[in-house]
Amino acid sequence: MPGNCIGNLFRLCTFGESHGPAIGGIIDGCPAGLEIDSGFIRKEMARRKPGQSAITTPRSEADEVEWLSGIFEGKSTGAPIAFIIRNTDARSEDYGHLKNVFRPSHADYTYLQKYGLRDHRGGGRASARETACRVAGGAIAKLLLKRAGIEIKAWVSAVAGIDIPVSIAELDLSAIESNPVRCPHHSSASSMQAEIEKARQAKDSLGGVITCLVSPSIPGLGEPVFDKLHADLAKAMLSINASKGFEIGSGFAGSRRRGSEENDAFSSDEQGNVRFLSNNSGGVQGGISNGNDIVFRVAFKPVSTIGIPQQTVDTVGKTLELEAAGRHDPCVVPRAVPIVEAMTALVLADHFLRNATITIDKIFTE
Amino acid sequence: MPGNCIGNLFRLCTFGESHGPAIGGIIDGCPAGLEIDSGFIRKEMARRKPGQSAITTPRSEADEVEWLSGIFEGKSTGAPIAFIIRNTDARSEDYGHLKNVFRPSHADYTYLQKYGLRDHRGGGRASARETACRVAGGAIAKLLLKRAGIEIKAWVSAVAGIDIPVSIAELDLSAIESNPVRCPHHSSASSMQAEIEKARQAKDSLGGVITCLVSPSIPGLGEPVFDKLHADLAKAMLSINASKGFEIGSGFAGSRRRGSEENDAFSSDEQGNVRFLSNNSGGVQGGISNGNDIVFRVAFKPVSTIGIPQQTVDTVGKTLELEAAGRHDPCVVPRAVPIVEAMTALVLADHFLRNATITIDKIFTE
Amino acid sequence: MPGNCIGNLFRLCTFGESHGPAIGGIIDGCPAGLEIDSGFIRKEMARRKPGQSAITTPRSEADEVEWLSGIFEGKSTGAPIAFIIRNTDARSEDYGHLKNVFRPSHADYTYLQKYGLRDHRGGGRASARETACRVAGGAIAKLLLKRAGIEIKAWVSAVAGIDIPVSIAELDLSAIESNPVRCPHHSSASSMQAEIEKARQAKDSLGGVITCLVSPSIPGLGEPVFDKLHADLAKAMLSINASKGFEIGSGFAGSRRRGSEENDAFSSDEQGNVRFLSNNSGGVQGGISNGNDIVFRVAFKPVSTIGIPQQTVDTVGKTLELEAAGRHDPCVVPRAVPIVEAMTALVLADHFLRNATITIDKIFTE
Amino acid sequence: MPGNCIGNLFRLCTFGESHGPAIGGIIDGCPAGLEIDSGFIRKEMARRKPGQSAITTPRSEADEVEWLSGIFEGKSTGAPIAFIIRNTDARSEDYGHLKNVFRPSHADYTYLQKYGLRDHRGGGRASARETACRVAGGAIAKLLLKRAGIEIKAWVSAVAGIDIPVSIAELDLSAIESNPVRCPHHSSASSMQAEIEKARQAKDSLGGVITCLVSPSIPGLGEPVFDKLHADLAKAMLSINASKGFEIGSGFAGSRRRGSEENDAFSSDEQGNVRFLSNNSGGVQGGISNGNDIVFRVAFKPVSTIGIPQQTVDTVGKTLELEAAGRHDPCVVPRAVPIVEAMTALVLADHFLRNATITIDKIFTE
Repeated sequence: MPGNCIGNLFRLCTFGESHGPAIGGIIDGCPAGLEIDSGFIRKEMARRKPGQSAITTPRSEADEVEWLSGIFEGKSTGAPIAFIIRNTDARSEDYGHLKNVFRPSHADYTYLQKYGLRDHRGGGRASARETACRVAGGAIAKLLLKRAGIEIKAWVSAVAGIDIPVSIAELDLSAIESNPVRCPHHSSASSMQAEIEKARQAKDSLGGVITCLVSPSIPGLGEPVFDKLHADLAKAMLSINASKGFEIGSGFAGSRRRGSEENDAFSSDEQGNVRFLSNNSGGVQGGISNGNDIVFRVAFKPVSTIGIPQQTVDTVGKTLELEAAGRHDPCVVPRAVPIVEAMTALVLADHFLRNATITIDKIFTE
Repeated sequence: MPGNCIGNLFRLCTFGESHGPAIGGIIDGCPAGLEIDSGFIRKEMARRKPGQSAITTPRSEADEVEWLSGIFEGKSTGAPIAFIIRNTDARSEDYGHLKNVFRPSHADYTYLQKYGLRDHRGGGRASARETACRVAGGAIAKLLLKRAGIEIKAWVSAVAGIDIPVSIAELDLSAIESNPVRCPHHSSASSMQAEIEKARQAKDSLGGVITCLVSPSIPGLGEPVFDKLHADLAKAMLSINASKGFEIGSGFAGSRRRGSEENDAFSSDEQGNVRFLSNNSGGVQGGISNGNDIVFRVAFKPVSTIGIPQQTVDTVGKTLELEAAGRHDPCVVPRAVPIVEAMTALVLADHFLRNATITIDKIFTE
Repeated sequence: MPGNCIGNLFRLCTFGESHGPAIGGIIDGCPAGLEIDSGFIRKEMARRKPGQSAITTPRSEADEVEWLSGIFEGKSTGAPIAFIIRNTDARSEDYGHLKNVFRPSHADYTYLQKYGLRDHRGGGRASARETACRVAGGAIAKLLLKRAGIEIKAWVSAVAGIDIPVSIAELDLSAIESNPVRCPHHSSASSMQAEIEKARQAKDSLGGVITCLVSPSIPGLGEPVFDKLHADLAKAMLSINASKGFEIGSGFAGSRRRGSEENDAFSSDEQGNVRFLSNNSGGVQGGISNGNDIVFRVAFKPVSTIGIPQQTVDTVGKTLELEAAGRHDPCVVPRAVPIVEAMTALVLADHFLRNATITIDKIFTE
Repeated sequence: MPGNCIGNLFRLCTFGESHGPAIGGIIDGCPAGLEIDSGFIRKEMARRKPGQSAITTPRSEADEVEWLSGIFEGKSTGAPIAFIIRNTDARSEDYGHLKNVFRPSHADYTYLQKYGLRDHRGGGRASARETACRVAGGAIAKLLLKRAGIEIKAWVSAVAGIDIPVSIAELDLSAIESNPVRCPHHSSASSMQAEIEKARQAKDSLGGVITCLVSPSIPGLGEPVFDKLHADLAKAMLSINASKGFEIGSGFAGSRRRGSEENDAFSSDEQGNVRFLSNNSGGVQGGISNGNDIVFRVAFKPVSTIGIPQQTVDTVGKTLELEAAGRHDPCVVPRAVPIVEAMTALVLADHFLRNATITIDKIFTE
């Protein structure tokens, strides 16, 4: 039960350390006959890749995915889809000075406490490099969801307290990829980018918030008790490195409101189709999607690795001052956008398959 | 995969609808030989029970737990511990008028979309009555954690925008149960209680925030990738009825800070024991507990059931106005406190057992 | 992971000891909208019940199933279906003399070794009484399989070395329930019954073999690697009390043959439909059902409880002679017939649901 | 739930087709700090490798395992241990003539029925080549079990009806690897080898039986209800290609005996230690190991691929005669010996870890 897998029917398991020979994963449960659009997958991988813009780490990884199984003549076969990504630019020697030192707010200390030993080179399994595998798996999940008509879009909605000042409806989401911050609001994007540049020069780091929208969604996804759709989304989001918070719909703000303000009243159109007059629920009610847009937000802390000297201790308890080397992003939030989308896709694909046997009528279609 | 269970090694499965003959559950994976303190369990059940104070629903359920298996001469035997709780005060006739109507922001609409049929009496499986089973299971989990020295305390930290104005360190947590709001800050508690009373008279409902503290914690709990400790906590919390947000440590506020402010620097005492100079991480780093206090917050929306008329539709799409009857709390947050604790205990007990085989040295102790 | 559940998508979890207040279980994953034929379930329960004929134990249990959840207006709702069966004729005092003694070939010794403590009354969780829950769960599984056109029939094919001397094709399977041995071959049934009667008088016990036939089957059930259909059937069968062997198709006999004799050649009818010229495979090839009849055999040892004095030891290692009291069957094999069927149904129902999302074409039916 | 994994706490997942770029797997749940003896693993791999002796297929695969993660400085780190094995001697062109033909008793027909498409080259996922991954995973499991003092030995006990005529106690198990048949009884081994040679010349194939012994075993492994130790062993064995039967202890023979003959009476030595006077149970009672030797037998049918012409049909239902090409073993049973051992090791390692949290006393050792 070491928690290296996510999903039940559509499942991704990952392996690999950032400084080992390769990272990789297995996607198991993908139905046979899905067309695997390799161009699409490559584009998704490129969105997460280090070195993609001026505001990201200069570590240069090709992130070339080698597919090993489960695909035949361009289609999934129903067998596990395995892949590896070689580590080509790991500079383990950069980490020699960290062998006996705990970097503040990293996993160094907790790994040693848990496992009694530790691969100190680049954080091992705790490295955000692992998320490349999530994007690969998420790309396959997206291909399945596309068949069901479901689309996922995420963007940076805040960096270091700079928030997009308009509602989602007022945003042009086609502009997300038009700037390196992945913020669809242009003036906010500029401010964020300037702030990130300042943080880099100060050798400091910044946090931020990502908003994710599933639109169109479909009703019926999610299970009523422990595996509520937003509960599984929360887990998936909090499993992303540096993430510290999740809220769906009106979230924390909703906790300050009254039921009469917060409830989403129903209406119907001329054909008698049900419509919602608001979406404070964020598209999920009683743990199950209602067909309305799914909207949630994820908080990311500033990355722990900074160049500013910090107080820490070594493995024998001696206090010392640490000035981190290594190559890192001053703000990971823009690169976390495709990861948020990938994790969302993995959760939705899983619940989509789980929902396929929910009623006798679905199973015995004529 | 219908999601009626939580946990891997320490696992609770629940069943039952609020208007069926009984609800209940199975706790599986409890190690043999644990002393089952039945007085403690009864106290935990009483904390969640309806009708416990002036600010809760008048539905009067004894919530008497009948233990059916897995306990022999006061100790767990290693066999599944099953229990049932009879429904004694279900007034299904109160729900007759809801048979063909969707209550706004309830699970009525989504259940019908998902299952094609629906038990309209009291919300069926979506009723918060199901959480009685979580408290029963959580009580056993707490007994296990006590053996490991781990304590869990939750309290109401905000209602309808009224926030406790002091830090956790300044609170007297022994005062949590001294008022019906379960808020350890007296003047805040009074304001909250007054606000809840006003909402009841207005037939409206209120949301709020619960803070949970695990202190003392132990290091090493949580798995590094998908089953990070705070990811599993987030899922557990978002699985509670009416919950819409989760944050650990500095959470959303931390997303506005810099790494140099946010990082938890290390220090050591005279014996060389590692100490943390701050706890912005909320006790979890890289997904694994660091031994520092675990601190997180859960946002609850106002309950959906209100007496104020609301616009809705019926199952054939006709628009109508609904004035809810039924017996409900104007603010569920105080009663959610033991549920938050129970879910926390279930997650921690599971990770505690998962951690027991993590190293060769733990397995082959001499 | 205490192994009290079986199945993945269609799952049964059981609980309860033979001398506690009740046994019971949860069936989770049954699709919503299945008609629950309670008369059928009662008939299935009656087939396993003690005291049903002259050759079974006189313990008299009503085996009345109380259904607690998941059924509404005669149909499954998609929620967990929970049930309990009260223990009404447990005579715990019969077991007082066994408190400190290990009965040979029972679970007494191994339970104490494993758990460090033991409920000595009637074997606790190891009692065959637990199988009543399997029959209840299996009855629901059978109702689902009936919708898919799948039928399961098991019978006693050997007792104490008395084998049915003809092939399955020559048997009239409608005669299975016509005698207390559940053997459809009349003269064999008479010999078996006489032998069982002799064993009872000698205070000894007898083993036997059950054959199970799934006909008609459907192709495509089972997963290719570890969860091969016959692997899951083997596990399910070996999980039944007193079972010691499993073989599918030609089984152990096939291991003595040549490929040219053993292979099942193909043919086709005039419409080009594929036909098999033999069924040495027992209906499963490469772990997946081929649509041909599924045929397998399960070996049961003689029950361990006998009245003949046996040498044993007590919990402090003193050697002594034990003469078992308690009420038991001289030959459990006839009563194991409905259990074999139930376990088969549980495995097939699970694989039937697992197969429902195996291809894109199955999911996106127009 | 596609069944490509086995185990709960110690888990192996495999992937890959015999004619894709590589096969491989992930071992997850191996405790941190286990010394990984790579020489031992290589020896285990060599025992399964094709082309190892005159009686095996001439397909020549290096079966070189590349370890990708989870091992650092010669020890397991607690992270998933991933590995790949490149396919170097796949001759896909050999299979072109099989593209539209179903080989009798292979998985060709069932795969197409299940998945709607099929990788015809070498059987894809159904190829016994997948078992190389099981041997790699089993080798790690064996290293863990060695730390617990548990040893596993399997051998060929029958080929084509030639049975070893003596009891296990009379065999010299150190002789298993002394002949290509892996039969420790010399004269039987010679007869078997001669029979295999004859079958090869006749272009036919032979089945057989493998016996497996776990000695010393330890008490307490296995779970009492569905995950009985012998149930999980049965599943693991039946998941091996060409396996059709399983029996533990006296198995099918025991079904012909009386309780008074079959029961394993207890005795004790001078120190009061419990001893068994026989081992008809095969080392498992009530689903839990009793510390006595675990002994079971697995039946293998003759391999389906034979050179003798057979009647079959093609994908459009046309009857034709097939003469198989491709490179195959006339009798796979000798090469299945390390696979039986590997699967046994995987099951035992899993139950060993599952057992580590079974009692409060095991968890809270002082």
